[in-house]
Amino acid sequence: MRILVLGGDGYLGWATSMYFSKRGHEVHAVDNYLRRRAHAEAGTDSLTPILPSLPERARVWNEVSGLEVGVTEGDLVEWEVVERLFTEFRPEAIVHYGEMPSAPYSMKDREHAVFTHQNNVVNTLNVLWAMERFAPEAHLVKLGTMGEYGTPNIDIEEGFITIDHNGRSDTLPFPKLPGSWYHLTKVHDSHNIHFACRIWGLRATDLNQGVVYGIETEETKLDERLVTRFDYDEVFGTALNRFCVQAVIGHPLTAYGKGGQTRGYLNILDTLQCVELATLNPAEPGEFRVFNQFTEQFSIRDVAEKVREAGATHGIDVEIEHLENPRVELEEHYYNAKHAKLLDLGLHPHFLSETLIESMFSTIERYKDRVILDHIMPSTRWRPTVTQPARG
Amino acid sequence: MRILVLGGDGYLGWATSMYFSKRGHEVHAVDNYLRRRAHAEAGTDSLTPILPSLPERARVWNEVSGLEVGVTEGDLVEWEVVERLFTEFRPEAIVHYGEMPSAPYSMKDREHAVFTHQNNVVNTLNVLWAMERFAPEAHLVKLGTMGEYGTPNIDIEEGFITIDHNGRSDTLPFPKLPGSWYHLTKVHDSHNIHFACRIWGLRATDLNQGVVYGIETEETKLDERLVTRFDYDEVFGTALNRFCVQAVIGHPLTAYGKGGQTRGYLNILDTLQCVELATLNPAEPGEFRVFNQFTEQFSIRDVAEKVREAGATHGIDVEIEHLENPRVELEEHYYNAKHAKLLDLGLHPHFLSETLIESMFSTIERYKDRVILDHIMPSTRWRPTVTQPARG
Repeated sequence: MRILVLGGDGYLGWATSMYFSKRGHEVHAVDNYLRRRAHAEAGTDSLTPILPSLPERARVWNEVSGLEVGVTEGDLVEWEVVERLFTEFRPEAIVHYGEMPSAPYSMKDREHAVFTHQNNVVNTLNVLWAMERFAPEAHLVKLGTMGEYGTPNIDIEEGFITIDHNGRSDTLPFPKLPGSWYHLTKVHDSHNIHFACRIWGLRATDLNQGVVYGIETEETKLDERLVTRFDYDEVFGTALNRFCVQAVIGHPLTAYGKGGQTRGYLNILDTLQCVELATLNPAEPGEFRVFNQFTEQFSIRDVAEKVREAGATHGIDVEIEHLENPRVELEEHYYNAKHAKLLDLGLHPHFLSETLIESMFSTIERYKDRVILDHIMPSTRWRPTVTQPARG
Repeated sequence: MRILVLGGDGYLGWATSMYFSKRGHEVHAVDNYLRRRAHAEAGTDSLTPILPSLPERARVWNEVSGLEVGVTEGDLVEWEVVERLFTEFRPEAIVHYGEMPSAPYSMKDREHAVFTHQNNVVNTLNVLWAMERFAPEAHLVKLGTMGEYGTPNIDIEEGFITIDHNGRSDTLPFPKLPGSWYHLTKVHDSHNIHFACRIWGLRATDLNQGVVYGIETEETKLDERLVTRFDYDEVFGTALNRFCVQAVIGHPLTAYGKGGQTRGYLNILDTLQCVELATLNPAEPGEFRVFNQFTEQFSIRDVAEKVREAGATHGIDVEIEHLENPRVELEEHYYNAKHAKLLDLGLHPHFLSETLIESMFSTIERYKDRVILDHIMPSTRWRPTVTQPARG
């Protein structure tokens, strides 16, 4: 299958590109290095030493595997880039990771909030218009996030919920309570993609993904140069990955608030499986399908505890610090999110284990000298200071 | 009260500016003439001969009423404009009409869809950030649209719905099924404003407005030069207003499809009342309040019939033409939208009557020679032609 991977230079995008290439698909990876630039600006970096560019990564992939991954260095916000990709590569599936993915980044200030909107919403609009014009039969596999739902006091269904109300019934989009400007852009995307399916008959699967952890995949293990990026800073590092780095370097785990915040989690190996299952079993024409993509639910407390326990086994003394929460979120809440659809398609989950955490410790230890300490503590607050007094 | 009217040069914005000014408020109206420019590009125009600029309108308003309306010609997408407005005028209420308001405009092509997103979403983000920084106690009165809800098969509540599900219950944002890119931008705004209220404690009222009809208000009647704009073309003209012009010039009424499409409608006089009620009874800090702003529900068939009947009384022979629907929408559907909250605040509706339609005919007759016939028939289709063959 001809698969376009948007955001192919990222943590998941690069791993996905190699994964599909290895399985006989024709892969074209696209990236504008937004994440690399954001790191350069902030003075942070991937823990793992990734190759300097997408063409270089594709070259080494070819050297190691004998397989080709096409690459484009370009910005999906520019229509000319998207138009050329669709007319030249003519994708049958589009796996869309190509967005600014960080909640704290989007919360820094007005400029970052607006940029995140323009980048994510406009590039997804461009992809939808390109599908309508050049690839109406193609299937969009879009990475959304479980964070679109927030933490409602009812079970979270997969994208839609049947509501019985005043004697009538309808199945409607599940209400959204996103927790950051970044999460909002994903909600906007979901509404836009749903509309494009309704009016143009496009096919789309929205993968509302949980928090991904893990460093290695079958393909990254083939050669150290094929390693994917791994973020642990306060802006791009997600909970479990960040905690593992903190454990290895002897930094207290930075748990925000009481730690009762519960989310869905999954191993990077399962991200690859899920994206493959969605791609090989496409939505029907006109169908907007939503899968909740995670395998287990944990609270931040659970995750920190697991890292501490694995640390003990591994011979590391891990301290957990409960910081004042920089975010605005419930710290104790009901959380029960459904995630049956990918299991129904054949997902075999890799559950979180002490062994996995220990193997992450080992990989992190290899790159320990690369850790930049300055940006581990949270500095982005959801409630910035008011600079002028209020007027009544 | 110091009231900032964003989009103060528009059909409702100008009428609102005079209305509040007349009632003793300090009004500052802002516009970048987006609508005037869109008309100039398309070769269309307001039926009514409006004064050439906002400063000129304010000058005549002052001449007629002795009252001052401040004006700014500027684009809310530019932060400098918004920052200056908030720091200099220091609004207590912000009435936000300042968006690209047309569904067909947004559906023309990719550029128009993207522009509508950038304009509406970014300018509202700017307003929210300006409130957070400079006016955290101010109240945002944002014009949304009933079109955000689409036509679900259950009763439409006012913004939120209590959902009982698997033995638990929560009151969550009402699910949205918007019918155009324009309507989508309003949905995005609603989510963004709700979030700003949750994290920053801002106050906001989202007025999900129905289709507004009518030409005259108490203030426009004071002097012919104070007339507000009145659109009847396929891009900016809404159903009843457009039908009245068609009736007067002897053009068949352009009803799309079967005509069972049912929507909420209200008189422009009630828009002014509703906006005033929302403004004078602000939301609480942190509250995101949604009012459905309309007074009666009609199908397109009903509206066309009413115009035909009023025509007969007025001595005009009105023909109704059912055109192939350029939109993608249900033409027969359940529709029951709640609209109690503004009535509870004291709204006294002006219901649609034959007398009102006849008085619209009379006003339209005055400006009949200004009608541009070329852009009455719909040309914007929701399903553009695919220009390249699909590849399997």
